[in-house]
Order: sequence, then structure tokens, then C-alpha cells
Amino acid sequence: MRIALDAMGGDFAPEATIKGAILATQKLNEDDIILLIGQEDVIKSQLAENGYTGSQIQVVHASQVIEMGEHPTKALTQKTDSSIAIGYGLLKAQKADAFCSAGNTGAMLVGAMFSVKAVEGVLRPSIASLVPKLSGGIGIMLDVGANAECKPEVLEQFGEIGSIYAHYVLEIENPKVGLMNLGEEEGKGTVVTQAAYQRLKANTSINFIGNIEGRDLFNDKADVIVCDGYTGNIILKLSESLYDILESKNIKDPFFDKFNYEAVGGSPILGINGNAVIGHGVSTPRAICNMVLHAQHMATSRISERFKKNYSE
Amino acid sequence: MRIALDAMGGDFAPEATIKGAILATQKLNEDDIILLIGQEDVIKSQLAENGYTGSQIQVVHASQVIEMGEHPTKALTQKTDSSIAIGYGLLKAQKADAFCSAGNTGAMLVGAMFSVKAVEGVLRPSIASLVPKLSGGIGIMLDVGANAECKPEVLEQFGEIGSIYAHYVLEIENPKVGLMNLGEEEGKGTVVTQAAYQRLKANTSINFIGNIEGRDLFNDKADVIVCDGYTGNIILKLSESLYDILESKNIKDPFFDKFNYEAVGGSPILGINGNAVIGHGVSTPRAICNMVLHAQHMATSRISERFKKNYSE
Repeated sequence: MRIALDAMGGDFAPEATIKGAILATQKLNEDDIILLIGQEDVIKSQLAENGYTGSQIQVVHASQVIEMGEHPTKALTQKTDSSIAIGYGLLKAQKADAFCSAGNTGAMLVGAMFSVKAVEGVLRPSIASLVPKLSGGIGIMLDVGANAECKPEVLEQFGEIGSIYAHYVLEIENPKVGLMNLGEEEGKGTVVTQAAYQRLKANTSINFIGNIEGRDLFNDKADVIVCDGYTGNIILKLSESLYDILESKNIKDPFFDKFNYEAVGGSPILGINGNAVIGHGVSTPRAICNMVLHAQHMATSRISERFKKNYSE
Repeated sequence: MRIALDAMGGDFAPEATIKGAILATQKLNEDDIILLIGQEDVIKSQLAENGYTGSQIQVVHASQVIEMGEHPTKALTQKTDSSIAIGYGLLKAQKADAFCSAGNTGAMLVGAMFSVKAVEGVLRPSIASLVPKLSGGIGIMLDVGANAECKPEVLEQFGEIGSIYAHYVLEIENPKVGLMNLGEEEGKGTVVTQAAYQRLKANTSINFIGNIEGRDLFNDKADVIVCDGYTGNIILKLSESLYDILESKNIKDPFFDKFNYEAVGGSPILGINGNAVIGHGVSTPRAICNMVLHAQHMATSRISERFKKNYSE
């Protein structure tokens, strides 16, 4: 697999991304390649400084960088030689099997829509987040921020897309789909969640188990947690803050360690014609390494092709 | 103060409520009275069994009970001699300064609207939740379930109502109001939160500090957290589940102990002509005791009159 990595993305780039790429080479398969995109001279000198002499990292030059605060659409239109633009170019041309970046989230999302585009039949691509489960498993929650509000049919499709991801990437047989709501009973919630409930219930391609509540996030009621991006984003950031709170109190626990964004491996963009992962802005080398491994796992699972097969064929 | 308590409300009633009432008498002022509403013979025999011989608990007979699963409106219409109906009757007749119950939440809400009614000028009464802060303080979040979806003007008013509560009950000077959102920047979020942001910003009666994110729930950015009931309910139940998770892992910490619903003292209904508190269904004696103390504190702060003064005069 060829994993493109934005060397310039993230608050600690390029130092953290380059170190993260080197870490990843120790865990990837021998024939996997990392395409490290960014300012060639800087990357090459830092690879040398870090003593990297292998051949699994190939440098792809990009003369421009989209900064964290830039307007996504404007930046992508103007900076056609930016690392994000080049990364998506490689993905579109199938010169990369996956692309990941800890840079500007909006630019990563808009870049996907500009280049590889949404899979035909997918109403709204989404950003998903992996959810650690108390039992030791992993679930997936979507959307966590790409679509602040969602129509019922979009929420229904999140149930399908999440199920496909859970099946092929998380390797969960017949994943359980739950709709995040304020009560378990049918008929609870907003007009949109009520309508989404009926659509999910009638959808025979998924294993819908009904509404779930905030307290069910970490238990095994649902493998796929469906919600709009406003709600998912609040849940995600609240959960992330727990790790920081516990760490500040010197409380260590293997379960809560999984809330550490460094361990999570970034958030996949689902429903586009390619495998893309967005990393946390403050990504450390460990976080970058896990993001690359996540991207490789998505590519190996051929998840983007599964979406195409499901919706376009 | 005269605090009416539904003896029959909650999964462990009347045993837990009666024990909770006795506990509360040890902490209330000497001249405070608990009006314990329910089946007189049962209550009296259990008070005796528990060795209670004081005069701070007075029994008010109610021949009927609204069960947890009953339809609120139907139950209240049919069971006019139920403990919840009697409790609100006492509140309306000003024979009680506050009423609290760990019974049917819907019936508590509908009962308020049937009896004491919303304060004139209050668009939608809400259920609020106290939020423990890492710094040791307490904040308030509203709504947490009474109104699944809210118009911008309702969210704006939550900011006002929460500020009044924070000022008079939590004794916070010039409380900071934050709008729960998926990003800090102005213009983020749904159409409703975007419009609510503008209204809150223009409202000179409150100290609006802008959007807050899920990670800000427990820090000191905002004392008053404004959100719709769908979002607030999910946040509340997710937070409550943390205590259970940590306890299951035998992790003890004074901050997370505050997430124990037993310590919280129930959720106040705000914006009605009376002081009412809803307790957790699984309330233990300790939880009942804290709910009574919370109700007494609201009555002492004359919070319901503050709302009347603000909106009706």
C-alpha cells in the first residue's frame, strides 16, 4: 500500500510528522510505502537528522502549505501546490491508496470534495470517530462535525456507511446500529431523529437496534452510533477532555488511555472515492504514526471501494 | 420553609424517600417542614419503624400513585389524588414553598404546566442540571430534556433564566453564559445555534462569552451552559455514566464523585410559578435528602419569584 502523508499538517509539523512517519515504517508491512508530502529539502534534511536511511519513505515535493486558520475553499483554490492539494491529487490519480493529514480539517474535507469527490449515491460524506468500548471492542460514531445538521435520510445513510466501515475495517459481524437520542423509546427526540428512527427501522440492510442514550456511548449496545455532526462533535470533544482531566489527576487506566487522541489514529472521512484520514491538530509523532496505520488499514480493507460498490453499482 | 416531597416517587419508594426525608431533617433548619405526600398509613408505619419521632415531617395523604411508565397527561388527568397532583396542589396554594419528586419525570413536568403554570413571558420552562466544575465551583446547563428542539429565542431565554439561577441560587456574580456548539468561532453550528448566538450576543442583560465546545463542560469558561434539551440530555447522561464507569474500575476521585447522581440533588424545573425539583428514578435515601436540600435552597433563594419579577413585572 502507498500511504500519502501531509508532512506539513499539524501544529508540530514537520518535526512531528517526519518522526511519526519513521515510527510508522517500523509497524507497516515491508512493501508499504509512505509518500511524505511537503518541502523536499526540509523533509530530507530532517529524515537524515533522525537517522532514517530506509526506502519506505518517499518524499513528494509541495511548495505550499495551507495554514490551520485559512479558509478551506479559498486556500485550496489558491494553493494548488499545497501538501493537501498534492495529497488529494495523488489519491485521485490512484498513486496513493490513502491520504492522511493533521492539518486544516476544513481543507481536508473540501479537498476531498474537490478531488476524489463523494461516492455517487452518498448524500453527505461524513467524518467519523472511533469509540473505545468498555468491553475492549471499538465502535464508530458518525458524523462528528462535517454536517452540523442532517436530514433523516442522511442519518439513515450514516447507519449504512457506519455499518460497512464496522464490518470491513473493524471486522464486526452484523454491526448493531444505534440512533443517539434523549430516550430509548420509539417516538423520543426531535422531529428529525423521530423520522430517522422510522427510516433506520425500515432499512433491511442494517441491524438497527433502536435509540441509544448518552450513557450507552461506551457500552456494547451499539457498534455504529448515528448522530448529526453537531451532536457527535460535542460528544467527541467531551470524551477527549476526559483523558486530559484524568491525566491531570494522575489517574491511569487502560480504558481511558484509549481516549488519548494520540492512540486513536485520526478521524476517517467516509463516503468519498478514496481513503482519507484527518488527524488532530496537536498531533505528536505517536498520533501521526497511528493515523498512518489507520489509513493503511482502511486501504487494506478497501473500504472506499466497498462504499462505491454499495452505492454506485 | 415547607418542602413537599413525593413519598411514592422513585424506584425504591416509599422506603428510600422516607429514609431520605428523615436524613434531610438532620440538615434542614429547625423551622423547615417536610410535607411527605403519599399513603398515610404506610408512611406513618415506616416513619415509626425508622424510629422517627420528630415534628419536622408532616404526612399528607394521597390515595393514588402515578407509576414510572404511565403517560403523564393521561395519568395526571385521571389520578387527581396522586402524590404528584397533590404536591403541585400544595405548591399552587402556597401551602408548600417547593415540591420535589423522584417519580415520573414527564408527570412532574406536565403537572407543573397544569398547576402552577409557566411564568408569563417565559417561552418554554426547562429542566436544568447542575454541572460540577474542575475548579470546585458549580455551573448550570439547560435544557436537559424538557424541550428536545428549541428556537433561537428559546435558547436566548435559557441564557437569561440560567443566569438568574446562577446568580441567586449558585451565588455567582455576573455568571458567564456559553452556547454549546461544535466550534468556538462565531458562525459555527446549526442554523438555530447561529441565530441563537446573535441573539445572546445582543442581549445586554446577560454576560455572553460566546460558543463553548464539549471539552469546556467542566472548565470555567461558562457558568451557564445553553443548549437544546436533546443535546443537554445526551451530555447529562454521558457525564452520569462516567461515575459508574470509574466506580466499576474502583477509581475514586472527589471531582468525579460529584457526578454521582446521589450527590447532585435532582434537576430543577425553571421558569414556572413555583420551585420544583425532579429526582433520579433510582434515587437512594442520600439522593432524596440532597433533592430536598436543593428544593429548600431554591425556596430560600426565592428563585421562582425572581423569574416572575424578571418576566411578568
